[in-house]
Amino acid sequence: MKGAVMKAVVLLSGGMDSTTALALTVHQGAEAIATVTASYGSLHQEKETEAARRVYAHFLKRHATIHSPIKLDLHSAFTRSKSALLGNDSMPDSKYSDLSVDGPSATVVPFRNAHLLSSATTIALDLEYDTIVFAAHANDAAHWAYPDCTPEFTGAMACAIYVGSMHKVRLTTPFQFSTKAEIVKLAAELGAPLQLTWSCYRGLEKPCGTCPTCLERIGAFKLAGYKDPVEYLYESPWPEHSRAWEVQNDPLH
Amino acid sequence: MKGAVMKAVVLLSGGMDSTTALALTVHQGAEAIATVTASYGSLHQEKETEAARRVYAHFLKRHATIHSPIKLDLHSAFTRSKSALLGNDSMPDSKYSDLSVDGPSATVVPFRNAHLLSSATTIALDLEYDTIVFAAHANDAAHWAYPDCTPEFTGAMACAIYVGSMHKVRLTTPFQFSTKAEIVKLAAELGAPLQLTWSCYRGLEKPCGTCPTCLERIGAFKLAGYKDPVEYLYESPWPEHSRAWEVQNDPLH
Repeated sequence: MKGAVMKAVVLLSGGMDSTTALALTVHQGAEAIATVTASYGSLHQEKETEAARRVYAHFLKRHATIHSPIKLDLHSAFTRSKSALLGNDSMPDSKYSDLSVDGPSATVVPFRNAHLLSSATTIALDLEYDTIVFAAHANDAAHWAYPDCTPEFTGAMACAIYVGSMHKVRLTTPFQFSTKAEIVKLAAELGAPLQLTWSCYRGLEKPCGTCPTCLERIGAFKLAGYKDPVEYLYESPWPEHSRAWEVQNDPLH
Repeated sequence: MKGAVMKAVVLLSGGMDSTTALALTVHQGAEAIATVTASYGSLHQEKETEAARRVYAHFLKRHATIHSPIKLDLHSAFTRSKSALLGNDSMPDSKYSDLSVDGPSATVVPFRNAHLLSSATTIALDLEYDTIVFAAHANDAAHWAYPDCTPEFTGAMACAIYVGSMHKVRLTTPFQFSTKAEIVKLAAELGAPLQLTWSCYRGLEKPCGTCPTCLERIGAFKLAGYKDPVEYLYESPWPEHSRAWEVQNDPLH
C-alpha cells in the first residue's frame, strides 16, 4: 500500500474508525492531509471535538504534511431533526442489533453523511486535493442501522463526487467492508492512537460503557483480542487473554 | 400529469427555472410544498432572495398547501471557494458557450448543488415529505459548464438520496433534459410568474443584460418567441414577432 500519492481530506470525528483511517492515510504515504471535524449539536460534541484535537496533535508531531485542522459547523442543517444523538429522543442502553431488526437506528442524524461528504468535496476542490477518506464501516451499514453508511449510499456519493468535481476528487471508504473488530486489529498494526479517541454517545466525563456505540466498541476490542485503552464508567470484565493496547510512537514510521 | 400525490421540497432560488419547477409542482397537484431558498454569499444574493420571496408570496395567495418558506444558510461552506459568482473572480461578459469549450464555468460554486440537495433531503426527512424538486436543466449541463447540474451528477445524487433516506425521499429533476427555451414555453403554459424572478449574476438595481446568465435567459426567451417581462440595463432589440409575456393569475388553477 506504500507509495500511493494523494492529497487527502480525512473526515476525523475523533472516534476510533476515523482515527484509524487517518493512520492508514499517513501509512499509505499521502503527500498532504487535511483533517475535517464537524460539529452539529450532538450530545458528545465537546468530547468528540477534544478527541479530534488530541488525535490531530498526535499526527502533527510526526508528519509535516498535515494541514491546519478544518472545523465544519453543521448546526443549522439539523436544528429541526429528531435523533437520540442530538438529545431529541432518549438514548437507548442496548446494542445496535437489539434496536431494530431492520432500519435506521434511533441515533441516526438524518442524511448527516451527505452533508459531511459535500463539505469535504468543496474543501478538496478549494485546496486542490484529490481524495476524500471516510471511515464508514460494515457494522454501521449492517441491518441498515445507518443508511448513510451503506455501500449503496457511499457508492452513489462516490459517483456524485467524482462527476460533480469534474473528475478531480474521488471518495475512498477503506473500511466499507470491514467490521469494527478488523479496524481494531488494523489500528494495532498501524500504531493508531486509539487511547486518544472518544466514541461514547453520552457526553459524560468518561465513556458510559452502555450506550450502543460503547457496547459496539467494547465488543470489537474483545473480538480483536485487545483491551480497550480508554476507561469506562461501567466496564464489564475483559476476557483473560485480552492483550494490552500498546501506546507506541507509530511503529511503522 | 395531474393527480400525482406528493409532498415536495422545492429548491427555489428566485430564478426562472426553479420558479417554473414550483409552478409545475403545484400544477401536478402536490399535497404539500415547502420551498427552500439558500444564501451562500453570491453577488446577486439579495436580489435573488427578494425574488424568491415575491414568488413564494405569489403562490401562497393561491395555494393553501404551501409550508412557511425555509431559509438555508450555506455561507460557511464556501468561505474558501473561488468563483466569479462569489465575487472572488471577475464576472465575464459573454455567453457560457464562449467561456470554455469544455469544463466548468468561472461562475461555478464548487459542489454547491450537493449541499443544496443534502439540506433538502434532511428537511424532507424532518417534515416527512417524499420528493425533492430540483430545476437543473440541459443548458447548465451542456459542455460540463456546471458539473453539478449534469444528469450523471443528479442521477448519482438521486440514488444517494433514495438509499440514504431509507427509500423515503426521491429526487426529481423535471428539466434535466429540457433547454431553457423549453422552460420558458412551459412557464407560459403554466402561468408561472417569471415577471417576479431574478437571474442576473450581478446584484445591480436591474439585471445587466450582459453577464452569462442574462445572455442565456434573453436567448431562451427569444428562442421561445416571448419578450422577457423583466427590464434590463442593457437590452438588445427583441425580434418583432416576440409575444408579450402575459402576467396572469394561474390560468390552470
